[in-house]
Amino acid sequence: MWHKDLRELIDTLEKKGKLIRVKKEINKDTELMPLVRWQFRGLPEKERKAFLFENVVDSKGRKYDAKVGVALIGASREVYAIALMCKVEEIREKWVKALENPIEPQIVGSGPVKEEIHVGGKLEEHGGLEEFPIPISTPGFDPAPFITAPYWVTKDPETGIRNVGTYRAMVKGRTKTGVLAALAQHIGIHLQKCKAAGKPLEAALVIGGPPVVGMTSVAKIPYGVDEFSVASALAGEPIPLVKCETVDLEVPAYAEIVLEGEITTDYVEPEGPFGEFPGYIGRPTLSPIFKIKCITHRKNPIYQAFISQMPPSESSKLRGIAYEVLLYRHLKHYCNITGLLDVAFHEPAGSHFYCVIQLRVTHPAEAWQALTSALSLAPALPKYVIAVDDDINPRDPDAVNWALATRVMPHRDIRIITGRISWLDPSAAPQTVGEAEATFPAVEGTSALIINATRKWPYPPTALPAKEYMERALQIWKELGLPELAPREPWYGYNLGYWSDEFKEAAELAVKGEYYKIAEIYAQRVRKGEEKQSEKTPS
Amino acid sequence: MWHKDLRELIDTLEKKGKLIRVKKEINKDTELMPLVRWQFRGLPEKERKAFLFENVVDSKGRKYDAKVGVALIGASREVYAIALMCKVEEIREKWVKALENPIEPQIVGSGPVKEEIHVGGKLEEHGGLEEFPIPISTPGFDPAPFITAPYWVTKDPETGIRNVGTYRAMVKGRTKTGVLAALAQHIGIHLQKCKAAGKPLEAALVIGGPPVVGMTSVAKIPYGVDEFSVASALAGEPIPLVKCETVDLEVPAYAEIVLEGEITTDYVEPEGPFGEFPGYIGRPTLSPIFKIKCITHRKNPIYQAFISQMPPSESSKLRGIAYEVLLYRHLKHYCNITGLLDVAFHEPAGSHFYCVIQLRVTHPAEAWQALTSALSLAPALPKYVIAVDDDINPRDPDAVNWALATRVMPHRDIRIITGRISWLDPSAAPQTVGEAEATFPAVEGTSALIINATRKWPYPPTALPAKEYMERALQIWKELGLPELAPREPWYGYNLGYWSDEFKEAAELAVKGEYYKIAEIYAQRVRKGEEKQSEKTPS
Repeated sequence: MWHKDLRELIDTLEKKGKLIRVKKEINKDTELMPLVRWQFRGLPEKERKAFLFENVVDSKGRKYDAKVGVALIGASREVYAIALMCKVEEIREKWVKALENPIEPQIVGSGPVKEEIHVGGKLEEHGGLEEFPIPISTPGFDPAPFITAPYWVTKDPETGIRNVGTYRAMVKGRTKTGVLAALAQHIGIHLQKCKAAGKPLEAALVIGGPPVVGMTSVAKIPYGVDEFSVASALAGEPIPLVKCETVDLEVPAYAEIVLEGEITTDYVEPEGPFGEFPGYIGRPTLSPIFKIKCITHRKNPIYQAFISQMPPSESSKLRGIAYEVLLYRHLKHYCNITGLLDVAFHEPAGSHFYCVIQLRVTHPAEAWQALTSALSLAPALPKYVIAVDDDINPRDPDAVNWALATRVMPHRDIRIITGRISWLDPSAAPQTVGEAEATFPAVEGTSALIINATRKWPYPPTALPAKEYMERALQIWKELGLPELAPREPWYGYNLGYWSDEFKEAAELAVKGEYYKIAEIYAQRVRKGEEKQSEKTPS
Repeated sequence: MWHKDLRELIDTLEKKGKLIRVKKEINKDTELMPLVRWQFRGLPEKERKAFLFENVVDSKGRKYDAKVGVALIGASREVYAIALMCKVEEIREKWVKALENPIEPQIVGSGPVKEEIHVGGKLEEHGGLEEFPIPISTPGFDPAPFITAPYWVTKDPETGIRNVGTYRAMVKGRTKTGVLAALAQHIGIHLQKCKAAGKPLEAALVIGGPPVVGMTSVAKIPYGVDEFSVASALAGEPIPLVKCETVDLEVPAYAEIVLEGEITTDYVEPEGPFGEFPGYIGRPTLSPIFKIKCITHRKNPIYQAFISQMPPSESSKLRGIAYEVLLYRHLKHYCNITGLLDVAFHEPAGSHFYCVIQLRVTHPAEAWQALTSALSLAPALPKYVIAVDDDINPRDPDAVNWALATRVMPHRDIRIITGRISWLDPSAAPQTVGEAEATFPAVEGTSALIINATRKWPYPPTALPAKEYMERALQIWKELGLPELAPREPWYGYNLGYWSDEFKEAAELAVKGEYYKIAEIYAQRVRKGEEKQSEKTPS
């Protein structure tokens, strides 16, 4: 079971009350993204929904046939699970299984994406990119609309192995976009190989299509693995692809829009600036140009955009879930962290910098092994890694701060690791330095902080009433008609290893009103001539 | 204008919709505190209210004339402000002014607290402490009811200067309680001086009374300053005190209950364990005994209890506000941190360990001066100090984590400071070691982490639409009838020093739909034969 295109997904979202359909006329250049932005700045995650704009205009008063869908797959973890047709708690297992067992996609003769084909003279006649209402993401700062949810399909010119990745594309003309990709990214490797061979890189830019393609396109899947095969594994069957018209590439048959063309390897032009995931406007770059030769699309296409920039956003949700899966798999399957329970990248910190690892520690070394191993998947992230126990919710910043407060002694439990690299991190170096220096400032690069916030020895119980009393009080709370609760863990007291039978018995007597009995026992332990001190330890 | 007793405060709270009056029969030993606990584990701070229980019984079926008030002054910052008769944003200034300009309290002939006087044979006859429904705070763990909101009044036996402080008191009999006070605490100094002189310490334990007395009793006001004089300054006029019946001490005339007696200095007895503010059950101690000789109280008294233990709680709210005031005053007035804007102790971390200092940095050294100075007020707190810029909400853990993510490079901006001491911090040492070692583990003690999370150079704008677009979108949001928003800062893009006129103009053209003009300028800056790189810096 999978959503084979965006239209099926939109139906499902609407049925589940997770779609906001906007019929009012909305300006894509000034109003559309700011409106969706509000839900990410003003609503809790569980209330966030997908948006479908049905009546889009631009600042020149132009109307569009196409609708615009934003936050369709990444409005929240729940929307993501709906798109993936599973429960929230099943996302990770489904992903790990797909990574371990990719399925070859299937080439089919044709598909809806071929309903309209604009090539040669027809391309300009239909307006090229102007046919689609591409929104401005950060009005007031962005110098153009950018395509924010492109799935760039390219092939390694030597091996022929496909890559699908999401790299921002600045709209520069009817048949021209920029493409921002670091040389170390997978499309960058293809570009370098083509440049060495003295030829441009063929590319197809896919917009819309099966949700599983979007999920894999934004994930850091190892080089040489075809994202369509992981997407097929997430779908549970081969996803149908069709051949492009003008380039030797395949694209999803149920995509909404496909742009076919070539990326230059012999020159670059200015591109950007553009709002980026750390929450600041990213610096402009000199980047290659994508020259569009052909556009194919469904009738009345849905133009899909991710909302990115300041976290939390759709883009940080999508990347975050994928990072969590990849790091979980790395630690559990390849680094042998058997006590690993969960990996949480905090979204307000861009789903990149701040990572909490939840463990059931079986040996003191395990937390440190997990912390150092968490830096071994990639040199650029995370910047903070915090190991917490199984009773700390790794996604709750207040719970993590409580663990930092009471389970960490800084000089013993915190280490700084240098020699790291940084992408788009404005704290690495001033904006005025070159890209190489900003990525790895001489001589020791950037750094990470690793924190062992697990308990180092048995702790006394948490200072809350025992479960039975909290449960009884919850009944009374409801009987009194008091406001609805959103309980935060921990909400009852539990033993963390340091508690004696004597204490237990004393507490049982106390709730029966028999506390004088305890006071009598205590009175027999009087210490004459002594001052205030700790009592002996429990047995 | 001030609330001269709890009854006036309860009227005000009820008028402002901040009081929950519980008429249902509630068991003080098993139900009362767990019920109030739920609002601290399950409701956002602004929804928290004060509780008044009018029909209290105990586990033996006994009924009480007294009502029980919980979270009357510290349910939330708003309730605190109501109790102090000011706005939330005026709390700090009111406190600083009171600390700078204490007012002598006034001794009056009598007051409502003398409505009932039980002394000598009458004391046992009236049941002693059993007259009052003292709740069990942490049923399932506490070995007895503890008095959690005592204002202990004692005098320095040499200087005669009064001290008022809150130290937990375990109920041990009808006329007997424990008293937990570290030797370094102010009452501890009095105890040591009396011990040296071979006599017990006279004490009056006040329950209920003017809210300003509670606020000052829990604050760490310097030794030698009479808390009643700071309370009077908070009230704006001398608060009336009456003389005790059996000890040479004065107590608020409008107190609900006063216990008079002596604290032993020649022996100690076991006391505790009890849930403590870091969120764990605190270890038992050997502590002195308070022998009650006389009880005076109002008719139908209101027994006031603070809810403490796991943060957030009333006790962490009360202590936190006082710490914030004292540290703000210290940094601003005595350490010359002119750019200081706010000091925030995070309540979920116990209002003790995790402190964020908001600054408008005028020189790079200022953040470091603030960070090191923040450790100079007390050796035991805070454990984490984080300096943030003026655009970071210091009370929002997600905003602080965003600053940690993007404004800190660990090896440059983080330092560990040893030689600190710890109170009730289970990460300092195993529970099995003695109190001295747990407080200052050999040889370097405990430690603090200081983090400079301010920007070290000009940053590009935040990646959000400019203010005008977000404001327009907010109108549309409301027109569409979308859910009510609770906006989180930042909610619009603003320049952080690194932005050029060219970028500004480009963005203005873009929202008018004239983005091809920018693309044309960019196309003239083509670089042949080059690869992807950063663009030149803006002028």
